[in-house]
Amino acid sequence: MRTGVWLVGARGSVATTSIVGALALRAGLAGPTGCVTELAELRGPALPSFADLVFGGHDVVATPLVKRAEALADAGVLPGRLVAALADELATVERELRPAPAGGSQADRATATIRDLDDFRRRHELDRVVVVNVSATEPVARPHPAHADPATLRAALAGPEEVLPVSSLYAYAAVTAGCPYVDFTPSTGLRLPALRALADERGLPYAGHDGKTGETLVKSVLAPMFAMRHLAVRSWSGVNLLGGGDGATLADPAANAAKVESKQRVLGETLGYQPQGGTRIDYVESLGDFKTAWDLVTFAGFLGTGMRLEFTWHGCDSALAAPLVLDLARLTAAAHAAGHRGPLAELAFFFKDPLAAPTHALAEQWTRLCEFTRRLHAGGSDDQPG
Amino acid sequence: MRTGVWLVGARGSVATTSIVGALALRAGLAGPTGCVTELAELRGPALPSFADLVFGGHDVVATPLVKRAEALADAGVLPGRLVAALADELATVERELRPAPAGGSQADRATATIRDLDDFRRRHELDRVVVVNVSATEPVARPHPAHADPATLRAALAGPEEVLPVSSLYAYAAVTAGCPYVDFTPSTGLRLPALRALADERGLPYAGHDGKTGETLVKSVLAPMFAMRHLAVRSWSGVNLLGGGDGATLADPAANAAKVESKQRVLGETLGYQPQGGTRIDYVESLGDFKTAWDLVTFAGFLGTGMRLEFTWHGCDSALAAPLVLDLARLTAAAHAAGHRGPLAELAFFFKDPLAAPTHALAEQWTRLCEFTRRLHAGGSDDQPG
Amino acid sequence: MRTGVWLVGARGSVATTSIVGALALRAGLAGPTGCVTELAELRGPALPSFADLVFGGHDVVATPLVKRAEALADAGVLPGRLVAALADELATVERELRPAPAGGSQADRATATIRDLDDFRRRHELDRVVVVNVSATEPVARPHPAHADPATLRAALAGPEEVLPVSSLYAYAAVTAGCPYVDFTPSTGLRLPALRALADERGLPYAGHDGKTGETLVKSVLAPMFAMRHLAVRSWSGVNLLGGGDGATLADPAANAAKVESKQRVLGETLGYQPQGGTRIDYVESLGDFKTAWDLVTFAGFLGTGMRLEFTWHGCDSALAAPLVLDLARLTAAAHAAGHRGPLAELAFFFKDPLAAPTHALAEQWTRLCEFTRRLHAGGSDDQPG
Amino acid sequence: MRTGVWLVGARGSVATTSIVGALALRAGLAGPTGCVTELAELRGPALPSFADLVFGGHDVVATPLVKRAEALADAGVLPGRLVAALADELATVERELRPAPAGGSQADRATATIRDLDDFRRRHELDRVVVVNVSATEPVARPHPAHADPATLRAALAGPEEVLPVSSLYAYAAVTAGCPYVDFTPSTGLRLPALRALADERGLPYAGHDGKTGETLVKSVLAPMFAMRHLAVRSWSGVNLLGGGDGATLADPAANAAKVESKQRVLGETLGYQPQGGTRIDYVESLGDFKTAWDLVTFAGFLGTGMRLEFTWHGCDSALAAPLVLDLARLTAAAHAAGHRGPLAELAFFFKDPLAAPTHALAEQWTRLCEFTRRLHAGGSDDQPG
Repeated sequence: MRTGVWLVGARGSVATTSIVGALALRAGLAGPTGCVTELAELRGPALPSFADLVFGGHDVVATPLVKRAEALADAGVLPGRLVAALADELATVERELRPAPAGGSQADRATATIRDLDDFRRRHELDRVVVVNVSATEPVARPHPAHADPATLRAALAGPEEVLPVSSLYAYAAVTAGCPYVDFTPSTGLRLPALRALADERGLPYAGHDGKTGETLVKSVLAPMFAMRHLAVRSWSGVNLLGGGDGATLADPAANAAKVESKQRVLGETLGYQPQGGTRIDYVESLGDFKTAWDLVTFAGFLGTGMRLEFTWHGCDSALAAPLVLDLARLTAAAHAAGHRGPLAELAFFFKDPLAAPTHALAEQWTRLCEFTRRLHAGGSDDQPG
Repeated sequence: MRTGVWLVGARGSVATTSIVGALALRAGLAGPTGCVTELAELRGPALPSFADLVFGGHDVVATPLVKRAEALADAGVLPGRLVAALADELATVERELRPAPAGGSQADRATATIRDLDDFRRRHELDRVVVVNVSATEPVARPHPAHADPATLRAALAGPEEVLPVSSLYAYAAVTAGCPYVDFTPSTGLRLPALRALADERGLPYAGHDGKTGETLVKSVLAPMFAMRHLAVRSWSGVNLLGGGDGATLADPAANAAKVESKQRVLGETLGYQPQGGTRIDYVESLGDFKTAWDLVTFAGFLGTGMRLEFTWHGCDSALAAPLVLDLARLTAAAHAAGHRGPLAELAFFFKDPLAAPTHALAEQWTRLCEFTRRLHAGGSDDQPG
Repeated sequence: MRTGVWLVGARGSVATTSIVGALALRAGLAGPTGCVTELAELRGPALPSFADLVFGGHDVVATPLVKRAEALADAGVLPGRLVAALADELATVERELRPAPAGGSQADRATATIRDLDDFRRRHELDRVVVVNVSATEPVARPHPAHADPATLRAALAGPEEVLPVSSLYAYAAVTAGCPYVDFTPSTGLRLPALRALADERGLPYAGHDGKTGETLVKSVLAPMFAMRHLAVRSWSGVNLLGGGDGATLADPAANAAKVESKQRVLGETLGYQPQGGTRIDYVESLGDFKTAWDLVTFAGFLGTGMRLEFTWHGCDSALAAPLVLDLARLTAAAHAAGHRGPLAELAFFFKDPLAAPTHALAEQWTRLCEFTRRLHAGGSDDQPG
Repeated sequence: MRTGVWLVGARGSVATTSIVGALALRAGLAGPTGCVTELAELRGPALPSFADLVFGGHDVVATPLVKRAEALADAGVLPGRLVAALADELATVERELRPAPAGGSQADRATATIRDLDDFRRRHELDRVVVVNVSATEPVARPHPAHADPATLRAALAGPEEVLPVSSLYAYAAVTAGCPYVDFTPSTGLRLPALRALADERGLPYAGHDGKTGETLVKSVLAPMFAMRHLAVRSWSGVNLLGGGDGATLADPAANAAKVESKQRVLGETLGYQPQGGTRIDYVESLGDFKTAWDLVTFAGFLGTGMRLEFTWHGCDSALAAPLVLDLARLTAAAHAAGHRGPLAELAFFFKDPLAAPTHALAEQWTRLCEFTRRLHAGGSDDQPG
């Protein structure tokens, strides 16, 4: 099952780490630590192997992939000897990267994107191409009447106005090209009625959104713990200090707002009430690709006794995200092959703000993911038996 | 369903908090925060209500219960106005407390204990009495040939030798008196072949052991998180600083060893490998009934990138344990009423070192507990249908 | 040496704790923990004793002092039995509290304030009255031409415009009434050219500003540590979570700005460069009078090796501030008696943003404070020998 | 002023980092971060420059210095490109390293050591050689009658018994060879009456002991902070998790005891009372050359209000120690040149357990160090004017 993985933001830290990692796994130079689909519970024949994956993508910057990989090695994110050993393979991927279409109307840019996707699929004789958005977080998008249905949207795109945020224009192109779509960022992407309708028309599955890699991952096990023990969370305050590209983007309060909102949702929905406190994101350039999150939880136990839990998470976002990107590409490809369509709620395990998912509790999400994957390996599909 | 709750260590912090809390709940003076059996998922007709519970117990010390409660109020564990409001009710419970039998052979002391249990049941026309061990942690017990089977044990108890640790002598008396038994401590209690055989003969259920109230509770959600994400935990080191009675006991390295061992088990069994590092327990008198635990987890992600998680837990052990003691008494009583016998593996949710339980992961334990309770409310029993 | 202590914000948490504490010390019901002037290095005959202090003050609210004290006892800030034991003494102080003058022009309110101060001094035959501002933090004040000199200011005050922020109107009244003035808050207070000139005219000493009670206290020893070891601080990020009255005030971004600025100054001035990162103040109501601050410091050592220090401070602001208020009242009274005038740079030890002080390093501030106090006890004064 | 620096344990992490660092500084490849003697307050003509330093040393292992440096680069302690750039210089130093003398009596080994020191001095025409012990921590030494005076010691050394711990045998050789001696470890070294007498006879200065690099450094500013604020420290508990060579050594409880004792001394001597709690050292191999220390301080403020401070220190011991080793070599050489003799109490700033020093407070130690260095630069000496 030859599977294309088309990365929007293909020269960013997450994409570069994903590509280097997949190449290293294929070459037997690294183990699958962090790859959920390589756990005994999920492994199986329905998933494309790492050797089946072919990488391509768009980016607005032009820095060669190998330069980006070397920079990540200097920053301690990638092992330097791995980057050196994979120079040839990286050069091969380099040839599959395209500049982000620019100029003209949004319809023109969509057409160029679709052409890139079609060429990629044909050139490598791929069974399918999964498009994954790993580009920088956008500001929260303004609503527009053209978001309501496919026909209105198509008409509007041809005009001079920028009716779609960039992430949604990519989602539009992906769906139009018949590609399953995964949104690993909190940007709007496919979450507009017109785009969902289009995906439904084309019978495509999609997944999202906002990869759950750090503080929110921890929250998604701690919040259920408090709930299961009937402890009353009084306040939950968090601060995220991060450098790197994503940090600079999130220093923009508008982008920040989108991220913070998706970070706090897990609490209210898991606990059944919203505790006091909020989440902050601050940019500290010198932290580079590493992120430090600190959370303080104050809670009441029996007869009101006050207690507290604090945690500090020092994580490398790219190293945490990259294997999940590979997992999502493999799972979404398998879901597409099995005839699944619409939002893949069973992939909620991977996301801060999962589509159509009934719970934020990691363990429940895990159970659903295991069941879903088991069915994929067994050859069936919920939606389209036969 | 009138249910006796007989507390071994009835004047300790945990027992006192349990009693004050149950009285407060009965009187409508406090809410059920921390009581798992009052969550929507577990509530139901099979469980005795708080008004159905009658308290009694043994202790080696004689400090009046109300004095202990006042001391706990001064220490910030109990609200002072609650203790004042419940003075009469506490005096009523006081009359049900008995000095721990002393002198004579262990058989003599067992007989005296059984007599106290029978009298308590008769005096209050109780349907059953659940015995719960909440006394101080014992040193690890030495093996003895008399632990092998009931007959040898009975013979040995009549002799001059102290063949059983105190917790096990209480378990022996409880079982002989036909009482379900719960071990909330890491002491030996019922975990001896002779005692298990006796419990089986009498068709009694039992549960244990070592209430999961603090650091291990957090571990039991964080360790599965690392496992589910395929992250490689390199080291997990913990330190527990605690004052209070339990702290002083655990300053004894022998008792300490029992506790530490049960604290680390969750890691190896959840992760499938034992990370480096250990757990320490240190006594710091001035911390009183509060406990601070600090854990450092270092782990590797994709391609070996090193990361870390730290947490600090500031908890009040008595406030965390007491509602679980009530939960366990209610659940064990209901299990007994439904005809369950042998180790109640479904109560693993409550314990650091659960009997006969296949997992340490809190979420799975929760699922099993919910199913078990649902069956109890529906009127059935796995073991003895009908 | 009978000394009046006139508190602006006399019914707030800090003032109430100061008053209860001074009464408790006088009655021998509590020890001097937290009182710097009771250390061997500072104690001596030049300072008024606790028995010499007479309390009075203004406040905009009217809640009786004893009610405020009881509320603080419920919140764990004051021992309940102390408040009960001091009920009579608190009632005595209650009679010395006055509503904050309202209505009319600012000149009218200043006149009323001066009258209250004069009456207080006369009524108790006080040698002097030290005015201490412990009221809630104000927004940063807008500049006004009338701030330039005493004559212009006096003229403007009589007009309808509110030319002075409230803290400065109190400072104006204090100085006009011949009272030394201490600003324990980050508000403008006496820091206007017109008011400084007035204080100089009257030969009055003054001290400020912004009591150093928590995170900044720790910073003022850690930042010099990094400097003395020639370690390069790359980033220093902090978050302050606080409830209570001050928290609510600081939720206002304008007041917040004043506080945050004074909190970061210590770093740049001590290190000689400004590290990346900032300080946040967030309001979390349920934390009450307690405050949690978390700081992350990343730094480079020899050959650039990256390292980090994190600290969490869980403090009770009122309990930390109150003894310093007493210290400042005693020291400022003694300085006045000794003929000191102008900004008391030697009291920098107590402040986040000290007036006229050359250093933020706590140990150096301590050395200067000790020398200053030694001279006071020896009977001399720098400014006015003889 | 050509100065030899003879390192005992010359192939260890601290020594290797010191040598690489000094070579890098000399070559202009790195800045002096972490070097205290390069601060404006201490810099000056009395100190030998980095170019004046010539390195040699003993070690029991034979791994080439460049291999050790490469291993440290892989571990993130040294920058890889620095090690590569300094390969030739490291080979030059390699030729000055000697195997630790073995076999024969202790007198024989001392003689061989002295010969190595003399040869080194002569070969490089050095003005003096400072011997610095940076080898692994020894177990606490047993007392022996021969430790009492030089004559008895000399006689005993010739016999078959091992009367001196290894660190002390090196100190003996150093002093006999007329070399100033610095003990950077908690081992016995020169701290025996016989050795001190010998050093006095020879008019030599010496410094020690136990470099203050991490948790204790932080303690030495925080403990004075609590003292200066008259806050009552109730408990101070610490845990140190460390891998690397020193970690493995300290896993030995005997060595551990020496270190822990020197770590707690700072508290009792600074506060004037010993708070509850202790310090733990645990070996966690995977932490490598990095160390994590966590400390919990609980303290009481005004009227007994309980508060707490926690800190976590993530440091690289070698990177912290190495510049101090260079500082100590330079300062001790200058002190020797100026005619100082006996214990250099003015260097207490550098040590956990300083010789003959009246205080553990970092800021006071800093003041003394600055004054001492100023006098050195001015050309004078306390002990031998003229």
